[in-house]
Amino acid sequence: MYLEDDTICAIATPLGVGGIAVIRVSGENALKVVNPWIQLKKKEMQLGEAATHRLFFANFVAEGELLDEVVVAVFRNPHSYTGEDVVEISCHGSVYVQRRILEALIGAGARLAKGGEFTMRAFLNGKMDLSQAEAVMDLIGAENKASHHIAMKQLKGGFSSDIALLRQKLLDFASLIELELDFSEEDVEFADRKQLLALLTEIKETIGKLRTSFALGNVLKNGIAVAIVGRPNVGKSTLLNALLNEEKAIVSEIAGTTRDMIEDVVNLDGVLFRFIDTAGLRNTEDTIEKMGIERTRKRMEEAQVVLYLFDAKTQTIEDVLVEVDAMMQVWGQKGVMEGKQVILVGNKVDMLKMTVKEKTDNKAEGCVKGERASYKIIWISAKKKENLSQVEEALRAVVNLEGLEDRTIVNNARHYEALGLGLADVERVEEELQNGVPGDLVAIDIREALRHLGEITGEVRGEDLLGNVFGRFCIGK
Amino acid sequence: MYLEDDTICAIATPLGVGGIAVIRVSGENALKVVNPWIQLKKKEMQLGEAATHRLFFANFVAEGELLDEVVVAVFRNPHSYTGEDVVEISCHGSVYVQRRILEALIGAGARLAKGGEFTMRAFLNGKMDLSQAEAVMDLIGAENKASHHIAMKQLKGGFSSDIALLRQKLLDFASLIELELDFSEEDVEFADRKQLLALLTEIKETIGKLRTSFALGNVLKNGIAVAIVGRPNVGKSTLLNALLNEEKAIVSEIAGTTRDMIEDVVNLDGVLFRFIDTAGLRNTEDTIEKMGIERTRKRMEEAQVVLYLFDAKTQTIEDVLVEVDAMMQVWGQKGVMEGKQVILVGNKVDMLKMTVKEKTDNKAEGCVKGERASYKIIWISAKKKENLSQVEEALRAVVNLEGLEDRTIVNNARHYEALGLGLADVERVEEELQNGVPGDLVAIDIREALRHLGEITGEVRGEDLLGNVFGRFCIGK
Repeated sequence: MYLEDDTICAIATPLGVGGIAVIRVSGENALKVVNPWIQLKKKEMQLGEAATHRLFFANFVAEGELLDEVVVAVFRNPHSYTGEDVVEISCHGSVYVQRRILEALIGAGARLAKGGEFTMRAFLNGKMDLSQAEAVMDLIGAENKASHHIAMKQLKGGFSSDIALLRQKLLDFASLIELELDFSEEDVEFADRKQLLALLTEIKETIGKLRTSFALGNVLKNGIAVAIVGRPNVGKSTLLNALLNEEKAIVSEIAGTTRDMIEDVVNLDGVLFRFIDTAGLRNTEDTIEKMGIERTRKRMEEAQVVLYLFDAKTQTIEDVLVEVDAMMQVWGQKGVMEGKQVILVGNKVDMLKMTVKEKTDNKAEGCVKGERASYKIIWISAKKKENLSQVEEALRAVVNLEGLEDRTIVNNARHYEALGLGLADVERVEEELQNGVPGDLVAIDIREALRHLGEITGEVRGEDLLGNVFGRFCIGK
Repeated sequence: MYLEDDTICAIATPLGVGGIAVIRVSGENALKVVNPWIQLKKKEMQLGEAATHRLFFANFVAEGELLDEVVVAVFRNPHSYTGEDVVEISCHGSVYVQRRILEALIGAGARLAKGGEFTMRAFLNGKMDLSQAEAVMDLIGAENKASHHIAMKQLKGGFSSDIALLRQKLLDFASLIELELDFSEEDVEFADRKQLLALLTEIKETIGKLRTSFALGNVLKNGIAVAIVGRPNVGKSTLLNALLNEEKAIVSEIAGTTRDMIEDVVNLDGVLFRFIDTAGLRNTEDTIEKMGIERTRKRMEEAQVVLYLFDAKTQTIEDVLVEVDAMMQVWGQKGVMEGKQVILVGNKVDMLKMTVKEKTDNKAEGCVKGERASYKIIWISAKKKENLSQVEEALRAVVNLEGLEDRTIVNNARHYEALGLGLADVERVEEELQNGVPGDLVAIDIREALRHLGEITGEVRGEDLLGNVFGRFCIGK
């Protein structure tokens, strides 16, 4: 359903009303589809004869009526995003005008583009490989420095070029082994088994490293879920608002651009921390009991970090440790606590007869030992915004971003899965070689490995795969 | 606060995530502000040396890191929207990327543009007059054919050129009369009073026509409010949904573009009909009594058309007329019904032992007479969607769109007000001339008229006026 080469059009800018909107047209007939509606302001020029990379002021005339004054940009094949002829029409950002222009283009033979179809054509025309095409989508969705960095790195080639190189080597071996089959009577070995094993080891190591990076990649893409739990009235909302407000102040410098980003999300050094609503704990005295409730458990399962907030004035450390130990026991049995960091946060220090600093100095090591584990402890006043930086620092420490610039990071679940399947194939081939399994069987598993690795870069492609990848794009890209 | 000529930048496309976004930079230093961040893909080229109307693929590099691959469009002064040097950067439509690019530009000395500031500069640089600048905003907000038509007509000059011409003639007279004052000893008349009176008549006529058109202009811009009232369960929601659904089917052909437009709004021949919620009537048997309630009254006041819906099976015409007469009396006393059309709609004809057609034929004239007035009556089945076209036709008939293409229409409240003030001035001058009032006094009132008419086109401008006009624009335009 995707593999067509007709001329497509779509609104490329965000949907809605704005100063201007851009409508993109791509395909062999891009100029022909736009031309009937266009009267260039320079009357001696013809749009059809326009050189590439030129801009024209024009009237867009539909049904004998001036619809809009537009700017037309011409990109000639192959010097365009898609590799085809591309025309971009910048019109006034009226919803009505945008719709009428699309209708006119469709009337002249264009088709409304499917989601991701422009990028898919860029891929099909060799402008980028499949993982780069996916990076375009990640780039568009990037909300912070880290996820932007990974998307950009992948867009510039990223690890897919490494994979393509290893895959090429493996392909050579596959060919040699398959050649052996033609000479099966003669029992020759074209493919050096030792070299092949060395290559398999190299591939396994590369895949292993990439798969390990996925956890971090995922964190950078989706953020880290943080649950703030504790008894009612210990100041959970105050803490959350205090953490959010600082962020809002920074973000709102450029008005209007970021409203969706900041809902309960704090951006620390480019990593997003999403605070999850553990509503189940908020309105009950019977905290421990409530913790067993399914709904709360599910939300807690999402969390990678638990901030256990308590009231420094009314709760003693000993009481808190009993509660936290109980929580660890109840949830630990259900496997909820696995891999989670729990940090104790003593709030309302301003209500004590000492400053936050004195309180903190008292507990120099910042660590307390419960029955089941040791916990980092931080003393704060959420209300007076004292010591919040320590909470932020503790959160930041959850992710190791050192050397991020140079590390290759997988953050795409499809790639992760393909790498896993490829790894299993490679391990099977390794085993078969060590057990002297006949070449024809080995060749089949090498082909499988080639297929799975090739799906990452799109060297192996099927309509299913393309539909799967591009179907998730927004229309107009 | 607006009258500056520094370099400004803003996101010109609708806010949010999309395939691409466009960031516009305008001002003397537009190229200088963009240049530090741009590495053209054609390395031999320099952005600073670019000819006008050219497009360049480029890397946008900030803080040593590739932020995005962009397309840069260069428009050289005066061949740009604002008349200044303009650079437009098309980047990937990521909120993060958009923000970072703005930050970079601001870092290089640009300033975030205020709402409408690009268009204001176009005005200040003589690219358009003030009423045309306002037409840009109307055009962006246009949601239908009619409002688009008016905005476009105004953008192309519209009535402001007529006003400017009449104003010029009046200005000549003012000069002549003022000249007389220098020769006041000699009692000469440079300005031919008869010609002046003829001109005043012409101006009055033009202003009068324009002011008359405002009612229609307002309707075309803001739509017509329709209240569907009636007892509970007569099928109000069914009728509304039936009217809306037809519209939705047309609108949703181009997915996603029009969602906000179609909430309770039906577009008939390019005129919007907004259905207002008269919730106060929906859940009570005691319809008449409820009608007196303040909240309902306010909503009813907005309506220009009232569809009085009743159940053709359970309510007789006689009962309905009693109800409607009561409504007219209750609301009529409060002045609510003034200028409103009331149309009776008999629903659920499918429940009777005759077809809608038979029912309609029975009442050939389609009109019934109550105590207080006659009403048009339409028989329908909202459920079976029978005869809905008659309802639509009745709504359409509320607005006379005949010859719309050739008519000049004022739809801007500011213009309407200025025309009214100008008219009063002209009438005063006329009176003064007829009463032989001395030239110096007449001259003052002519100057007043000139000022009010000049405010429409912006020939007379003050910061207040500009702030008032452009402050309502969205940022980026």
